[in-house]
Amino acid sequence: MSGSVVVAGLGPGDSLLVTPEVQRALDNATDILGYIPYVARIAARPGLNLHPSDNREELHRARHALELARQGRHAVIVSSGDPGVFAMASALFEALESGDYDTNTDIRILPGITAMLAAAARAGAPLGHDFCVINLSDNLKPWSVVEQRLRMAARGDFAMAFYNPRSKSRPHQFAHVLEILREECESQRLVIFARAVSTPDETVRTVTLAQATPDMADMRTVVIVGNSLTRQVGRWVYTPRSVVVPASAP
Amino acid sequence: MSGSVVVAGLGPGDSLLVTPEVQRALDNATDILGYIPYVARIAARPGLNLHPSDNREELHRARHALELARQGRHAVIVSSGDPGVFAMASALFEALESGDYDTNTDIRILPGITAMLAAAARAGAPLGHDFCVINLSDNLKPWSVVEQRLRMAARGDFAMAFYNPRSKSRPHQFAHVLEILREECESQRLVIFARAVSTPDETVRTVTLAQATPDMADMRTVVIVGNSLTRQVGRWVYTPRSVVVPASAP
Repeated sequence: MSGSVVVAGLGPGDSLLVTPEVQRALDNATDILGYIPYVARIAARPGLNLHPSDNREELHRARHALELARQGRHAVIVSSGDPGVFAMASALFEALESGDYDTNTDIRILPGITAMLAAAARAGAPLGHDFCVINLSDNLKPWSVVEQRLRMAARGDFAMAFYNPRSKSRPHQFAHVLEILREECESQRLVIFARAVSTPDETVRTVTLAQATPDMADMRTVVIVGNSLTRQVGRWVYTPRSVVVPASAP
Repeated sequence: MSGSVVVAGLGPGDSLLVTPEVQRALDNATDILGYIPYVARIAARPGLNLHPSDNREELHRARHALELARQGRHAVIVSSGDPGVFAMASALFEALESGDYDTNTDIRILPGITAMLAAAARAGAPLGHDFCVINLSDNLKPWSVVEQRLRMAARGDFAMAFYNPRSKSRPHQFAHVLEILREECESQRLVIFARAVSTPDETVRTVTLAQATPDMADMRTVVIVGNSLTRQVGRWVYTPRSVVVPASAP
């Protein structure tokens, strides 16, 4: 019997944001692997083995899934959001690259609603024009790379979405991010702090760059920074589709 | 009776990628508006009015939806992919900004699987690290802005996803994009042409930047350019999570 590995995106939290494709993969799984709170979202059923593990265990988890597939099992690794955006898909291919597994293993990556899209939808349309997506964690890259990318994003007048803006182990870095943005952007630039979108803990707050403070973000927050044209209409924040032509009725 | 406007993302094509949240909104709609091929994806039912319209009619369509809401109807504007990424959400807020409609209108933006996430999932995990998203159409922005953003994205060593790379009215621009990338990036940089992902017409092709030619893209193609570390394992393309630490077993 031939096994398989699926890496599936569960979306940001609300089960209404889980695609039918992902639900079908969960229903057909023999084994589900993932970070503890994500596996906790999966309903138990007879014949289904749940393998929750800690974060920072990504590569071990990926190897475990490939091992299960070799045994003929159908393993699903669950990620929040989309598995290809700062999540488990890259870890799986790193494990596959080790040479310990058959590169022809039956692997499928199933997309999901990544946090920035859910956050942007709640705020309005702040990512309605060109944008950059940056993981602010420096666990796996030097801080100098983060700083260079922030400056390039600002100088290209991209809107920006930041994942993992702040954690207990990195309390000061998001303050540096705000300092760099203040050097590069005008003080009235709009900044959205969207926390735990689509869960009962959801909060969405929009401030100017001048008003933004580091404590507005934590590890459950996605931060979206508008481009120079991003503006408010009523309670909404949006980035116009056009750089030159002013918005007007047809 | 109080009306509403929903802007809903239908995902890239496959109905298995439509979220239950979007399906519920479609089921509760009195009126569905959108570009002709997207409205064609909606099943007719008694009491549901379909309002297909041409592209380049975005602002008119948005005003129509707000007008229907004023009349107490439940209008759903459908976008392919995610409505907040180069799609109808920004157009709706531009219409709202005109002052002709109540900014307290009941509006909801429902996220969807945007084309780059579906394309990345098919290829592997090319967007597994920081990336930029650029609409290559210059219908609504000057070409100089596109060029500046390409150069900043390359100098930040971002992976890149390009929407609307090429159309009949803009046959030569994608050739310029490739020229700029060749100035900024090494010739072995991986480039993915993902066309009509999740539809019967799907094709996904990976080449090096040296091999890439303008005719590999059309308006149904999302182009993904890796960063300097993006590589292949078996038939997959992925970008490692780490900038410095080499991938290795735990």
